[in-house]
Amino acid sequence: MPNRNIKHLFIPESIAIIGASCEKGKIGHEILKNVIEYGYKGKIYPINIKEKEIMGLKAYKSVLDVRGDIDMAVIVVPAKFVPSVLLECGKKGVKAVAIISSGFSEIGNKNEEEVLVNTAKAYGISLLGPNIFGVIYTPTRLNASFGPRDVIPGDIACITQSGALGAALIGWTVLENIGLSAVVSVGNKADVDDSDLLEYFSRDKNTKGIVVYMEGVKEGRKFLQTAERVSKKKLIVIIKSGRSEKGAKAAASHTGSLAGSDKVFSAAFKQSGILRADTMEKAFDWARICSLPAPEGEGAVILTNGGGVGVLATDACDKERIKLLDDHKYLEETFRPYMPVFGSARNPIDITGQATVEDYFNAFKKAMESDKISALIVLNCETAAFDTVEFSEKVIKYFHSLPGWSKKPVVFNFIGGIKSKNAMDILNKNKIPAYPQPERAVNSLGALYKWRKYTKTEKKQIKKLDIDKEKIYSIINKAREEGRLQLLEHESKDILKACGLDLPKYKLATTIEEALKAAEKIGYPIVLKIVSEDIIHKSDIGGVKVGIKNAKELKNAYKEIMYRAKKSYPKANIRGILVNEMVEKGVEIIVGCSEDPQFGPVIMFGLGGIYVEVLKDVAFRVAPIDKEDALDMIDDIKSYPLLYGVRGEKRKDINSLAENISLLSYFSHEIPEIVEMDVNPLIVLEEGCKIVDVRMTLKEV
Amino acid sequence: MPNRNIKHLFIPESIAIIGASCEKGKIGHEILKNVIEYGYKGKIYPINIKEKEIMGLKAYKSVLDVRGDIDMAVIVVPAKFVPSVLLECGKKGVKAVAIISSGFSEIGNKNEEEVLVNTAKAYGISLLGPNIFGVIYTPTRLNASFGPRDVIPGDIACITQSGALGAALIGWTVLENIGLSAVVSVGNKADVDDSDLLEYFSRDKNTKGIVVYMEGVKEGRKFLQTAERVSKKKLIVIIKSGRSEKGAKAAASHTGSLAGSDKVFSAAFKQSGILRADTMEKAFDWARICSLPAPEGEGAVILTNGGGVGVLATDACDKERIKLLDDHKYLEETFRPYMPVFGSARNPIDITGQATVEDYFNAFKKAMESDKISALIVLNCETAAFDTVEFSEKVIKYFHSLPGWSKKPVVFNFIGGIKSKNAMDILNKNKIPAYPQPERAVNSLGALYKWRKYTKTEKKQIKKLDIDKEKIYSIINKAREEGRLQLLEHESKDILKACGLDLPKYKLATTIEEALKAAEKIGYPIVLKIVSEDIIHKSDIGGVKVGIKNAKELKNAYKEIMYRAKKSYPKANIRGILVNEMVEKGVEIIVGCSEDPQFGPVIMFGLGGIYVEVLKDVAFRVAPIDKEDALDMIDDIKSYPLLYGVRGEKRKDINSLAENISLLSYFSHEIPEIVEMDVNPLIVLEEGCKIVDVRMTLKEV
Repeated sequence: MPNRNIKHLFIPESIAIIGASCEKGKIGHEILKNVIEYGYKGKIYPINIKEKEIMGLKAYKSVLDVRGDIDMAVIVVPAKFVPSVLLECGKKGVKAVAIISSGFSEIGNKNEEEVLVNTAKAYGISLLGPNIFGVIYTPTRLNASFGPRDVIPGDIACITQSGALGAALIGWTVLENIGLSAVVSVGNKADVDDSDLLEYFSRDKNTKGIVVYMEGVKEGRKFLQTAERVSKKKLIVIIKSGRSEKGAKAAASHTGSLAGSDKVFSAAFKQSGILRADTMEKAFDWARICSLPAPEGEGAVILTNGGGVGVLATDACDKERIKLLDDHKYLEETFRPYMPVFGSARNPIDITGQATVEDYFNAFKKAMESDKISALIVLNCETAAFDTVEFSEKVIKYFHSLPGWSKKPVVFNFIGGIKSKNAMDILNKNKIPAYPQPERAVNSLGALYKWRKYTKTEKKQIKKLDIDKEKIYSIINKAREEGRLQLLEHESKDILKACGLDLPKYKLATTIEEALKAAEKIGYPIVLKIVSEDIIHKSDIGGVKVGIKNAKELKNAYKEIMYRAKKSYPKANIRGILVNEMVEKGVEIIVGCSEDPQFGPVIMFGLGGIYVEVLKDVAFRVAPIDKEDALDMIDDIKSYPLLYGVRGEKRKDINSLAENISLLSYFSHEIPEIVEMDVNPLIVLEEGCKIVDVRMTLKEV
Repeated sequence: MPNRNIKHLFIPESIAIIGASCEKGKIGHEILKNVIEYGYKGKIYPINIKEKEIMGLKAYKSVLDVRGDIDMAVIVVPAKFVPSVLLECGKKGVKAVAIISSGFSEIGNKNEEEVLVNTAKAYGISLLGPNIFGVIYTPTRLNASFGPRDVIPGDIACITQSGALGAALIGWTVLENIGLSAVVSVGNKADVDDSDLLEYFSRDKNTKGIVVYMEGVKEGRKFLQTAERVSKKKLIVIIKSGRSEKGAKAAASHTGSLAGSDKVFSAAFKQSGILRADTMEKAFDWARICSLPAPEGEGAVILTNGGGVGVLATDACDKERIKLLDDHKYLEETFRPYMPVFGSARNPIDITGQATVEDYFNAFKKAMESDKISALIVLNCETAAFDTVEFSEKVIKYFHSLPGWSKKPVVFNFIGGIKSKNAMDILNKNKIPAYPQPERAVNSLGALYKWRKYTKTEKKQIKKLDIDKEKIYSIINKAREEGRLQLLEHESKDILKACGLDLPKYKLATTIEEALKAAEKIGYPIVLKIVSEDIIHKSDIGGVKVGIKNAKELKNAYKEIMYRAKKSYPKANIRGILVNEMVEKGVEIIVGCSEDPQFGPVIMFGLGGIYVEVLKDVAFRVAPIDKEDALDMIDDIKSYPLLYGVRGEKRKDINSLAENISLLSYFSHEIPEIVEMDVNPLIVLEEGCKIVDVRMTLKEV
């Protein structure tokens, strides 16, 4: 637990600024100034080898010269001095250190950075950075950064890998009235990383939502597992840049972080309840809903004074899959009293531009109190007569009157000028999400639905396989002894069988007699396949024969396969011919397992043939996954309707497919020796699935 | 040309407010107040049956009492009085009238509305509305609306079908510093419609971009044709609500407008160079680029002081298919002088947080002057040291120094607080587009690329078919005489042949002998199909036999088809059996032509089988289209890579497919009698295409 001291980055009782400076414009000056002026209440010790006093505070040559305890230090001295001042921090017993200084791994100086980490570990220091713009925690009025001084206190924590962007965003949050609990620049993540911070904020009662700007992650799996837990309690939104190939390259050259496959990132985020935003605007829009309760049941209501904006919101609800309540009788009874005759009580509820503040508020209150309405979207087109600010104030008063705040999620959108902006500002300041565009309001409510769906899902136990590891490793070791990384078909199948997976019958035959005997036992029709580590593309050289109906056909096929194999590959080491049970027709599926540089074992799935190869219609997950996740994964691909049975075919056994994907993911996670597995095809039948062919590759040692 | 007087809605020399009122809060009061206070310079005549003076102006009982000419009148009296005051306007020679009053077709009073239109036509009045919130034209300081008084003058015209939304949006444009030339509420579009207004603004030198909020369109094809011309000169952005089924329903109940198929709307907009935005924010973001020149060539450059935001912009460029210049040597030479050693001259050009205003401006200027750089994206993360406003001022000065403004498109994004907002505001006020988020800047530049690509495309002549109309109508008339709307297969094929389309050989046979003779002439193998208006699903009852290789097989097949047809449909009127040339294997395509309620003949295309039926992977266009449009249409579907040849197959003749689609679209446009045509399948071969089956349905009379 290297980061037990992380809390001292946020709630230190005393802080030293090492490299504090009298000179305006210097980072050491700006940080000290921010610490003082933002209102930090603890002790502040400027450290400077020359000065006696800085900004009215007594300055010290070294932290070792300070009499009292120092909880946290901020280091802003040039890179070459950092190791020694950090060491002094260790000796002084400083618990947490934020290293602003750059000049480490981000420009290739990896050893210099490792030295810092070693010192931090030796003294139990939680080390943030290096190469950061600082750390801000509003509940303790701590602004130890050279970013803007003024930060609006609130309940969103912001973690950023880009210092420049983070500092710039603070100013933007002020304009947008976004309240923050913390801003943490993580820089090179030498010690304290995203996982540590998520862990910390998950227990921080001042933080309800976490926004992360990320270019790469060092320990993907650790991050994933942490996020999985944390997002059950707090909303996590991530902007992961480098989505495109060019963007990933730019990110790599910028921070030296490995971008990894973007599809895997998306899958990992989804699995751990993280919402992935593609823009900062969206990220903070979504973060605003972190205080809202989960919707109970379905059936949202749109309340509006303008038909047009109601239609736009309806379109947006459809896109977000938010169902609108359509019990017209109920809606008519509920809302008719608050509108003129030409108003519409069909959802969207249009109480028209004639509605007074009283009408609007009463309709709003009625909706809030209705058991049938699970979520509320309140829109308003600015008119001269309507006092939007007064309406907002009434809404806030109502929220405060509720025991334990609102039990129902509600979002607002006021379209208009300064009056609308003011009305939205006061809502947002009171943690009631309001947006200048109807789509942003609905999209954010959609984010709440997604997140709350995750928090409600119970993590199912992954069905464990009864794996005969001894058997598996005997096969693996045999291949290793023979210097092979590629397993033979029957070896791969033996391994899956040793995991308890159900496969069609097969037997390796080395003579025609053995083949006949095997076929007799399996039952015709059968499939013959050549087995040789030297022949990869079996079909291409005529090494596969399907639909063999009897002994006579078998003999001919056997001879022909052998003849062709030897002709194409005279030097091949032929192990024999695999006699396989013939599987009936169904939908062909490809399942692949491989090793992702960030996340370790991942599983890929798609429909066989053109769907994977040409249309690239595939879904990823970090392994292992349970059956529910596998069903979700199946739902991710566009060609999934083919599994429902098309052109008169019956529906395929999607349940069994999901079970198989889950088992294969579990297997690939449990046997790290096998770094790659291609199940191609797996055939989904009306009942059950059959793994027809599988290839496995061992890890290089 | 009923709307030759439309200009008087915008540049009237005198205006009458019929229903002007002394009473504050009344619409008739607010409009007069806006007209006076926004600074209209022409003559203003309040019309009120009771008052002698309103707001210091002499009031008249009727327009007929006014001595001077009245160019424009605004009518705000209750619906029942509108017909008579409109008539008086006609008699007075008023040229344009805006009817604010509601109570017409929007609540079902269609006749009352028709009366207004008739009066307007009789007197040559251009009639705007009824049911609108007014009209604003900033160059003449005319604000004849009951919306907000203050509108920022600029070059974007806004046309809105929703009054409430339009009025609310004005306030929002003030906050966002969006300059407008006009705001027109079109309401029920009884006379002046979107097409008329597009036409007007296309010639208005004060307008460069047009934003339309639309729920439905009455004369789709007229609108399309107008937009096609106008968008060559001016940028048109449309927010068409009712994208979803629920949204369309809400729109229909709101304005009574027919929403039509959303996919057809999207296609129509694309064909006519209109950009379709899904939110108002996007619409105005895009509209801001209306003054920018077209990019010359490819290769954009991102200039930034922060790596993170550079990566986000790179991702956004990838999404918008904006190519970044990657001539590293050139970039290094060009930009290295303006950055510290640790800056990056790879694109994005990161001149780092240390860059001064001088550095930033010099790098910007260098990029503007480079012949190799076709477009520029300037990003900035706010820092304490950098004066963003000073930088913006230098940029504006530079723009003003250029002969004829900038020759290169450039967009800005400043992330930060009030300093950045101020810097962006002054850029926007000078018609240099600046956005608070990098993605919004890049996405808007992407919009410019799309629009400018359209303005550069020359409208190609659609290849005309040499249609034998006599022959076609003889077939149609025969079917009509027999009381059929459904044509028989050979009739449909005869029609396509009569249009000069190339079809595989076929012949109707009524006896085995005729069939044998036909097969002999066509050449084996052949396909036999039953022909009867009473048998729709031919295959299902065994009415089709393929791959018939010789006379013997033909005889058996003929008998079997006849036997099965008679067994399944004993009362069917069997016309004979169609003997068809057998077409080799290729990619099966479906082309459908039908009648859209808004746009008339439309054409649909998709890959046969599951691609259309299950995956709904289809593209639409309004017919007719040329070959280029057809190629674009092919590019629209997700499964198009299958045409490039998969799994070792050769590439299919996409060119010939596009030609066929174009010809079929031309045909469906030329022969309105045929309201529906299904070509299924059309087989695309390595060389050429073959129409294997086609069904046609006649218009009901």
